[in-house]
Amino acid sequence: MVKIGIVGGTGYTGVELLRLLAQHPQAEVRAITSRKDAGTRVADMFASLRGRYDLAFADPAQADLKACDVVFFATPHGVAMAQARELVGAGVRIIDLAADFRLADPAEFERWYKMPHACPDLLEESIYGIPEINREAIRKARIVGNPGCYPTAVQLGLLPLVEAGVVDTDHLIADCKSGVSGAGRKVELNLIYSECADNFAAYGVKGHRHLPEIVQGLRRAAKKPVKLAFTPHLVPMIRGILATLYAPLKRDVDLQALYEKRYAGEPFVDVMPPGSQPDTRSVRGSNDLRIAVHRPPGTDLALVIAVEDNLVKGAAGQALQNMNLMFGLPETSGLTAPAVLP
Amino acid sequence: MVKIGIVGGTGYTGVELLRLLAQHPQAEVRAITSRKDAGTRVADMFASLRGRYDLAFADPAQADLKACDVVFFATPHGVAMAQARELVGAGVRIIDLAADFRLADPAEFERWYKMPHACPDLLEESIYGIPEINREAIRKARIVGNPGCYPTAVQLGLLPLVEAGVVDTDHLIADCKSGVSGAGRKVELNLIYSECADNFAAYGVKGHRHLPEIVQGLRRAAKKPVKLAFTPHLVPMIRGILATLYAPLKRDVDLQALYEKRYAGEPFVDVMPPGSQPDTRSVRGSNDLRIAVHRPPGTDLALVIAVEDNLVKGAAGQALQNMNLMFGLPETSGLTAPAVLP
Amino acid sequence: MVKIGIVGGTGYTGVELLRLLAQHPQAEVRAITSRKDAGTRVADMFASLRGRYDLAFADPAQADLKACDVVFFATPHGVAMAQARELVGAGVRIIDLAADFRLADPAEFERWYKMPHACPDLLEESIYGIPEINREAIRKARIVGNPGCYPTAVQLGLLPLVEAGVVDTDHLIADCKSGVSGAGRKVELNLIYSECADNFAAYGVKGHRHLPEIVQGLRRAAKKPVKLAFTPHLVPMIRGILATLYAPLKRDVDLQALYEKRYAGEPFVDVMPPGSQPDTRSVRGSNDLRIAVHRPPGTDLALVIAVEDNLVKGAAGQALQNMNLMFGLPETSGLTAPAVLP
Amino acid sequence: MVKIGIVGGTGYTGVELLRLLAQHPQAEVRAITSRKDAGTRVADMFASLRGRYDLAFADPAQADLKACDVVFFATPHGVAMAQARELVGAGVRIIDLAADFRLADPAEFERWYKMPHACPDLLEESIYGIPEINREAIRKARIVGNPGCYPTAVQLGLLPLVEAGVVDTDHLIADCKSGVSGAGRKVELNLIYSECADNFAAYGVKGHRHLPEIVQGLRRAAKKPVKLAFTPHLVPMIRGILATLYAPLKRDVDLQALYEKRYAGEPFVDVMPPGSQPDTRSVRGSNDLRIAVHRPPGTDLALVIAVEDNLVKGAAGQALQNMNLMFGLPETSGLTAPAVLP
Repeated sequence: MVKIGIVGGTGYTGVELLRLLAQHPQAEVRAITSRKDAGTRVADMFASLRGRYDLAFADPAQADLKACDVVFFATPHGVAMAQARELVGAGVRIIDLAADFRLADPAEFERWYKMPHACPDLLEESIYGIPEINREAIRKARIVGNPGCYPTAVQLGLLPLVEAGVVDTDHLIADCKSGVSGAGRKVELNLIYSECADNFAAYGVKGHRHLPEIVQGLRRAAKKPVKLAFTPHLVPMIRGILATLYAPLKRDVDLQALYEKRYAGEPFVDVMPPGSQPDTRSVRGSNDLRIAVHRPPGTDLALVIAVEDNLVKGAAGQALQNMNLMFGLPETSGLTAPAVLP
Repeated sequence: MVKIGIVGGTGYTGVELLRLLAQHPQAEVRAITSRKDAGTRVADMFASLRGRYDLAFADPAQADLKACDVVFFATPHGVAMAQARELVGAGVRIIDLAADFRLADPAEFERWYKMPHACPDLLEESIYGIPEINREAIRKARIVGNPGCYPTAVQLGLLPLVEAGVVDTDHLIADCKSGVSGAGRKVELNLIYSECADNFAAYGVKGHRHLPEIVQGLRRAAKKPVKLAFTPHLVPMIRGILATLYAPLKRDVDLQALYEKRYAGEPFVDVMPPGSQPDTRSVRGSNDLRIAVHRPPGTDLALVIAVEDNLVKGAAGQALQNMNLMFGLPETSGLTAPAVLP
Repeated sequence: MVKIGIVGGTGYTGVELLRLLAQHPQAEVRAITSRKDAGTRVADMFASLRGRYDLAFADPAQADLKACDVVFFATPHGVAMAQARELVGAGVRIIDLAADFRLADPAEFERWYKMPHACPDLLEESIYGIPEINREAIRKARIVGNPGCYPTAVQLGLLPLVEAGVVDTDHLIADCKSGVSGAGRKVELNLIYSECADNFAAYGVKGHRHLPEIVQGLRRAAKKPVKLAFTPHLVPMIRGILATLYAPLKRDVDLQALYEKRYAGEPFVDVMPPGSQPDTRSVRGSNDLRIAVHRPPGTDLALVIAVEDNLVKGAAGQALQNMNLMFGLPETSGLTAPAVLP
Repeated sequence: MVKIGIVGGTGYTGVELLRLLAQHPQAEVRAITSRKDAGTRVADMFASLRGRYDLAFADPAQADLKACDVVFFATPHGVAMAQARELVGAGVRIIDLAADFRLADPAEFERWYKMPHACPDLLEESIYGIPEINREAIRKARIVGNPGCYPTAVQLGLLPLVEAGVVDTDHLIADCKSGVSGAGRKVELNLIYSECADNFAAYGVKGHRHLPEIVQGLRRAAKKPVKLAFTPHLVPMIRGILATLYAPLKRDVDLQALYEKRYAGEPFVDVMPPGSQPDTRSVRGSNDLRIAVHRPPGTDLALVIAVEDNLVKGAAGQALQNMNLMFGLPETSGLTAPAVLP
């Protein structure tokens, strides 16, 4: 049994971790913290967990996180890096679902998140948590920076093209669409039902925090600078991300074969048959990421469509996948439930 | 391993059975039939099942259903009763998710479903499949009539009051609200998105087929005739039923205690604390049914609110719960996943 | 031209007033106030109004409301009664869309709204603004208390039965369902998209502020005390209220004729043909209220279904209807646009 | 009064025409036809029109369309071209909301619509009905081919760039998102609520019929061939199209000024201020098309976002705008209502 602590479990990634862990055969949630809701039972905050957890939120100061094998941070940016040194020092491994350990360059972190990085040395040893890229490193990592939701879909969507060097990496476009839960369990006017239902809009056009994370990953794969236009949009649905990706082809290539080969054996990346148009509901609640690759008629473009559940493969599910790797468990443990459709 | 056959698996109860069975540790789907889609792989029809099933839909004439331990009928009304005798004769047990084995009186079946009953003798031995009412009989049943979605919520919602004889059973009201998947995977104008999104309406006001089924169950519990107004409404959501139930109290009674006692030990019926207002998402994708009981101020009424997922506790989940009982498995096997929230 | 002022126009009733007034041939919005957003152009807050209004929100202290013929209060409860005396003294007529002038009894106001009434004398002369009940009084009123959204639907739905004395007014039930905009343009966790989409729940079961307002109206019509269970529910849609109303019949009566007679000649109350099941989208964006009346099979009940757009007939539209009456304009002026369907 | 006939008024463009015409001061609907629903009153099919129209659907064979000044075809493709010659011969002007008069080249029409064109000579004289492009020609046209919904948004979105010659027209991308009503009032499995709610997907990736129409328009503006990737997506909302358009800039240019100049004086094209992110609800139910233009950071692209209501500016509203031009009425007649927000 892996002994688990969760810091800041009152948001959507927190409740999603709890949902998935309730089905995990080798995991035991020992502690979950919340400054604001200390004392509240998790099942009183999330009725969906009634009968699954007796646990109450603990005050962060009181929770014995050092007795855990691993601590997940489902917190705002900046929290994990403040507590990382003490926990790691106590032999606890860390999976941060926020951004503290995503950007390798502390200066870039500071530019986008408006705070200095608290532990650049730990940042340097931390591993970026996409198993399909960093599987072996994750197994041994003490600290995993769990990727953002958009970056998971966009990187996995573009990687085969970029790694193979078949596209012009100066002219990449990621036109992305996300369900509203991607914005978190936050009380903001633009997130209320009457504002975003029956509506569709782009946002963050001037620069979204996931842009540097995506570019970092693509640059590593391309081994040279890349240019990317990243346009996120808000879809009136709860869960799901669909990334529509455009990349100019430098030469003719069997795209389908390229993708199938790159992801052969991957338990959670599903390269669909030629002509497929994946929909987000086909991954709702599951850790699957489905990809289809096309050639739009009359163009020299590769068109890739990737879908994932932003809260699962885009957050809590990928975090568990990382945990499974870190503790030598089967990578799919607790993550095999099919999507809920319809 | 229970060897399972499914007849007519292309509808929502069919795909939901497949979703749940994929997580069931002691179940093996051997055959699934569809006249229209014979030859199609289930994972090609439902992308959510990619990687979970290799199975293809078989022609009903070819499928070796008699080699199964149990056959689920996820078909239109009338199909199960036509095949029941042969299967039962071969030692196969049957769980019908349609209405063929719900109404004990063949004349009443004919009145509401406009066809004579094909096997009144088998109807007589069949068991109505609400475990919280008929648990012991279900264990031994050869044929289970799996209840309708509304009848499950309304009966379980009103049973404690009716069994205890504390309400006037001549003036019961069930004001019910269902997500659109309750209408099935059917191509009808009134079910298309642009017709039922951002909209709310009652339907079936002149008489819905679930009315006689509900009345039958309440009459059995009351041991006398009951009168019920049943008004179903269509909610712009995919899954979920909420039943708002009104019953005039004949005397003062501790409603909370009554409900907690009636459902003590029930794994899937959750009597919520006083003052609760259950929401359908708290059971989305799960087999839970949550109940809260109230006394509206200034009235002599009991007000009961019951929620369930119409496709799980209201259909496929309850069918598996029945299967578990019939085959001596733990009642909760394959049914423990918490609701998907948000 | 009626010169119009609007106090507090940044909520949904405010923007709805502006939308409707943009189409009103005899109305001119002179001033609109907002403490928080003073200086912002209304078209910058609500892009839907771009090209329709040059007006900016004014600081309440600066706005020359006394130069208006009528002032609408689209504010939280308590604001209108604080400013009413000064405006009325200056000859300005008032239509309050909040609750300050709805409940005739100041003690009842204080009980439900937790504040003493600031001007019981003005409350006494104010008129409750349902034209179908108080048309002549509204014409002459200096102050109109514009009704709540639920009260409009429930009262107009039950009035014919209650006025005719054909139902048992001790056992009335109003099972009501509202779109989320009924809660206003408010930033609350339970209103965000991911919390209320694909979900359905009751709320306010212990006592909703619209209950005393409804009971007051029905008591006036019945000329005796009434008892009502009022259960509001939240529907995942933006606009629309559907009230499902149950009343025990004391004697046989031609319900259809009763309703058609009561509302003959009413421009905004549409009694639908027998057997109809009105849907909220049939009134989306319009000032229509549609009613259908039924007899559920096997019961002694009248079942009435009433639908309205909570922001139009349930708020801003009814306010304009009242304004038209107060200023001798055609009652339907500016209110003739059909519903937006689909 | 313009005397109006509508052929095939039972779809969404039909009911939208009726909704808008009900508010048009100089229009009178004389006849509306439907083979299948002849005899049904329009208000019985669309409850939203109760009290607005006494008209019933007439059998096409019986309707006296030749007595009309203009006939709108809100029919499937192929109907208008079959009846055009007779009507035009009788002096009736035609506005076709289907595709019969959109593609100038009959061969291209046949390739995409799988039927030969019935009247190439009339096609040759017909005018493509985007007033912002062809205003003067529309005034005199006998036949107007009303554009598709996507083509309106994409062409108006890209025109200023293409006309000015500042972008590389070999690498245009139109990533488009539409509400479900764009698919029409059709009974298809993929359009039912449970299939497309809480879901997002691309469709028509292999080639959508609006592609040749868009390319034709852009080619005319560019005065040379263009290459465009066009990816439509289905959004779980009823109305609205958002086009996200990418075009590589050939040189530096003041994009904002370019757009403001191109659309100066246009009553229905709203170039929003720099930095805007238009949402579809800001045009819901209105004839407005809003555009914002951006430069994504770190790229050489122009990013244009255009929103419209697919049933208004994308169909029925633009048709009325064309009618107003054809009959010398104010261009905005009947089209001034602001969007319904929220």
